This record gives sequence, C-alpha cells and structure tokens, in this order.
Amino acid sequence: MKVVAGVDIGATKIATGLVSLSGDVILVESASTPQRGGSLTVALLVASMIRDLLSRVGATLVAVGVGTIGPLDIRRGDVVDTPNVGLRSFKVRDPLQRELSVDVYVVNDCVAAVWGEYRVGAGVGSSNVVYVTLSTGIGCGVIVDDHLLLGKDGNAHEVGHIVLDTSGRFVCGCGGLGHWEGIASGANIPKTAKILAEEWRGPRTEAFERSLAGSITPEDLFRYWRQGDSFADYLVGFLAEVNAAGLASVINAYDPEVLTLGGSISLKNPDFTNITLSRVRKYLINRPPRMLITPLGDLAVVIGAAMMAINTPANLLKIQGGRRFSGYEDLPYS
Amino acid sequence: MKVVAGVDIGATKIATGLVSLSGDVILVESASTPQRGGSLTVALLVASMIRDLLSRVGATLVAVGVGTIGPLDIRRGDVVDTPNVGLRSFKVRDPLQRELSVDVYVVNDCVAAVWGEYRVGAGVGSSNVVYVTLSTGIGCGVIVDDHLLLGKDGNAHEVGHIVLDTSGRFVCGCGGLGHWEGIASGANIPKTAKILAEEWRGPRTEAFERSLAGSITPEDLFRYWRQGDSFADYLVGFLAEVNAAGLASVINAYDPEVLTLGGSISLKNPDFTNITLSRVRKYLINRPPRMLITPLGDLAVVIGAAMMAINTPANLLKIQGGRRFSGYEDLPYS
Repeated sequence: MKVVAGVDIGATKIATGLVSLSGDVILVESASTPQRGGSLTVALLVASMIRDLLSRVGATLVAVGVGTIGPLDIRRGDVVDTPNVGLRSFKVRDPLQRELSVDVYVVNDCVAAVWGEYRVGAGVGSSNVVYVTLSTGIGCGVIVDDHLLLGKDGNAHEVGHIVLDTSGRFVCGCGGLGHWEGIASGANIPKTAKILAEEWRGPRTEAFERSLAGSITPEDLFRYWRQGDSFADYLVGFLAEVNAAGLASVINAYDPEVLTLGGSISLKNPDFTNITLSRVRKYLINRPPRMLITPLGDLAVVIGAAMMAINTPANLLKIQGGRRFSGYEDLPYS
Repeated sequence: MKVVAGVDIGATKIATGLVSLSGDVILVESASTPQRGGSLTVALLVASMIRDLLSRVGATLVAVGVGTIGPLDIRRGDVVDTPNVGLRSFKVRDPLQRELSVDVYVVNDCVAAVWGEYRVGAGVGSSNVVYVTLSTGIGCGVIVDDHLLLGKDGNAHEVGHIVLDTSGRFVCGCGGLGHWEGIASGANIPKTAKILAEEWRGPRTEAFERSLAGSITPEDLFRYWRQGDSFADYLVGFLAEVNAAGLASVINAYDPEVLTLGGSISLKNPDFTNITLSRVRKYLINRPPRMLITPLGDLAVVIGAAMMAINTPANLLKIQGGRRFSGYEDLPYS
C-alpha cells in the first residue's frame, strides 16, 4: 500500500499520521516537541516517527506534508525564530528529504489546515476559506479566490500578530506589542490574567488569587468560569471580546465564505467558542461568513498536511517542488 | 487614437483620466462626488466626464477601469452601503457599460491602486505588494504571490476595518467598534480629537479647544502640530501609533515585499508619514517590507484603474469580463 505522511509540528506536541492516497487517515502517533537540541532534532524525531508508523502498517511512503508552527522560511522549509518553542529555529524540509528520500512539503500549520478544510472539510465547494487556530498560539490559513496565500516568506497570514491593543500593557512572545496572540493565546492567558488581576477591584475569588500569583492555566480558568467565579467570568468575557475583534479583523481582511476554528482552546471549550462567535458581528464591515468549529477536529493539521503532499497547491509546488523521487508519479497532483 | 479611461470614485471627489494603451496619462478632470440622488447619479456623472474628455482629445474609448470607495458587490460592480458617501449605495458597472458601450471593470479604489503599483509603480518586479491609503477612509489593496486578492464580495482587504481598540470608545462610520478607520481616518479624526480632548489634563491649547468643540479638521491638526501645540502633539502621536499598529497588522497579515502609502493624509504630510513608518517595527513579526509613499502620487487610483482595463487580472476577467465590445481586440490583455 502506498501512503503519504501528514505531520503537525506544534509548540508542545508533534502528531504524525499516515494517510491513504484517497485521503483516509490510517494511523496517527504523537510525541512531545523537543524544546532543546540542534537544528536537526525535530526533523530526526519526525523521520523516526514516520519510519515506525510505516513498519507497523507495512506501507510504502511516497511523499510527506508538514504543517508546522511558524514563522517559517518558505523557500528553505525551515522554522525561524518561533516564539513558543524553546529551540526557536530548526530545519524541517531538507533533513526530512535526506532521511526519507521522498518529496517533502513544509507550510505553516494553519496553512496546512485550511488546505485540508478546502479539499476535504467544511470548505469543499467554497473559493474563499479561512481557518483560525486558538491554541498555544493563534494562527490562520487563508484561501482567497481559490488561491492559497503564502507571501514573500510564507507568512501571509500571521494574524495572531495583528495588533488589538496599543496601551503597551501586553507584550507578545515575539516581542511585538498588543498582538492578539500576546493577549489571548494559551501561552499568554496566564500573563493576561495577572495584568487584569492587578487592575481588578472586585471580590478576591480563587481564580483571582491564582491569576495574581501567575499560576492559573487556561484549563483552570475555564473550569473556574463554569463554576461561576466572578473574576474568571470577567477574564473570559475579556478574552471572548478580544477573540471576536481578532476574528472580525480576519474576516474584514480576507472576506471569506467559510471560517473554521480549530486548536485546543476552541475544540475543548465550545461554550466559550460560541460566545466568541456571537460577538463577532459588531466588529464587521464585510458580509459575515459561515463560522463553525472545524469538522476535522484535532487532526486538521495532519489531514491538511497530507493533502498538501497529495494535491500540492501550484504556488507551493513552484517554490518547494524541485526534487522528484520514485513515488512521485503515483500522486494525483493537482 | 485609442484610449482607456481610469476613474477614481472617492468620498468627496471623482477623478477621471484618459490613459494611452501604453499606460501614459493624457488628461485628467475632477468633480465633487454626488452625496444625493438616485442609484445612477454617480455613473451618469462619470459617463459625461469621460465623453467630455474624449471630445477634448478626439480619442476613441476602448475600455474603462473604475476604482471606487467600498465596500462593493464585485459581481454586480455596485457600491453597497459605503460609510463615507451620503448616497450609501449606487450602481457603477452596468449603467457605465450601457452609456459608453465598452467593457467596464469595477474594483475597490485601493485594489486599483495596488494593481497600478504592481504594473507601473514601486511594485514592478515584486510578487507581494500592498498599497494602503490614509485619507477620508483607510483602505488597502493586496497582491500575494502575484495574485490580486478579491474575496467573496471583492472586499478581501478591508483593513481599515481591522480592530485596534476594544474599549468601545471609538465607533466607525460603518457602525463597527474600534476600527482603524474609525479612529484615524480623515473623516474620523475630529471625533477622535474630541474623545482625547475630553480625557486631556494638560494645558488648554488652541488645538485642544478646537478639538473639544468638535471643530478641528485634519489640516488644522497638522498645522497646530507643526506650530508646537502640546495637545496637537499628543493627538498626532496617538494617530501615528494607531497607524503604525494598523500597518504592522497589514504586514503581518499579508507578508508583502513592498508596501506603499497613498491618500491625502500620507501625501500631504510626509513628516507625519515618516514618523508613522518609524514606529511600525515594534509591532511586527514578519520581515519588514520596503515601505514608501507611492511614486504614483494622487493619480494612483486613476492609473491603477486604467491598468485594470488594459491588463485585466485573470480573476477579475472571470467575474466581470462577460461582454465583448469592438475595441476589445486592441487591448494587450494579460
């Protein structure tokens, strides 16, 4: 059996799956993302995960698609100075091609996910599709007029780094001021909770004390919120407002027909996600798109990355499709 | 002589020019934008301006390109519910085609301008180009990977309506909250000046009194600023910060190689524009593009609209290129 591999390199977890040439997920395995090591550490781990999966299934690999945390250098297929992984920069495409001797395509994780949405998810039949992840970071993949946006370095969708606050209080992991991700992503919620706790004049609830101490996690926060904690309610309301403003900015910037939400914060908290979506309209000028949680669930990036290898977008093929390996002619490239 | 017409429909002014098939501007005339009338008022005015120009030059018209204030319905070529013109909605494409019997292409004014920048301006040779206007409104045109962004309704670039403030203090002309345009565009500067004056605790300067009374214009403001008025200095600093955050969001969203600035606020106040540009970097995650005031000056939209008619982008041709008139075969369509 011939297969492709779809890889999702996240800030804390790497998921690798084998996918049939007709797009079905066969087997997926996960590992923690290395926070230390050299520039090849991540790629060598992924290569060994793929080899392990192949040996368990007895399949032949014909191509690999990788959706990774960004920013990236789209020409080299490397991750460059990412704010949420200890390693900051690491190589992906070249070492994977050397290790596995097949074509490897590397894009931003949300670019992979939106491609999956467009080919086999909620975006099938639409020409304008946006995927947004609310997770450790905040990211986005965009298709406008059936064209997948890449940009000069492959980062034409870093909407997690659009500015939603100019007060200077919120500093993003990338160093930028007032970024959406710097306020509302999983990695930054504890910091935002502390800033809001320092300004809070209401009752000293449990969520307030944990926030002030800087020890509240997103999971804690949403649990306190469901228990009726008044500070948690204030903080979650603030985050929903920020996310609604961010999503509206995305819709005003790209004018999509369909917008899907993925990432652990969206997927684990559909109540919060629906409150967020209900607040988007007051920030919109463009006609609202269909908005929903991704039907691809937490495999959106794995599936999308695999679809990148199966039906490579023309502009990515132009940039990264230089080498040709033996399995290549089996793939239904679009 | 065969010519195309390039039309710039702005909030306060309509400029119409004749352009040779090799891209040279022959003659331009201006009129005030009608704020009242029926759905055909704007189109009939433009048609009479074009006829007048043609008779003065003795030229034959082969196509028309229009860059208009948005938002628009890209399929019909109509303007729909624009916040800054009294008429709100009006038809452009169909009545112009009927009146002039040539192909007419209608896009957002900044979409036209970025196409002009890409074909004959600062974007020649670049695949990723963004044009931003700071004027009565704030708008943007975007080319990513040599692809002109349109979106489901032709509004895949309404970045004037990205959200930069969630305090609820600033209401945009479109009704949305905290939009860049709602804070920093020419139409909204008097309102922002009043809000900041009400919060001001410094000396009661002339600019402060005018702002508090709601009677300061952008021209006044920049004059007071150059004269050293302390409230004007505070307000201009605030606007530079908001514009820097907005431009950084645009760069983070589209990853351009070149970003040009047009519109009356940028063109008339290069000192302010340069201060704004110097503050962009602290909000960036993407690699900075080349940033400059457009070399096409205040004819950017007229020239870009004409280039739309001369070398129509493939996706626009698909949407609006249904009719074929006699002059069509003379045009070097790309």
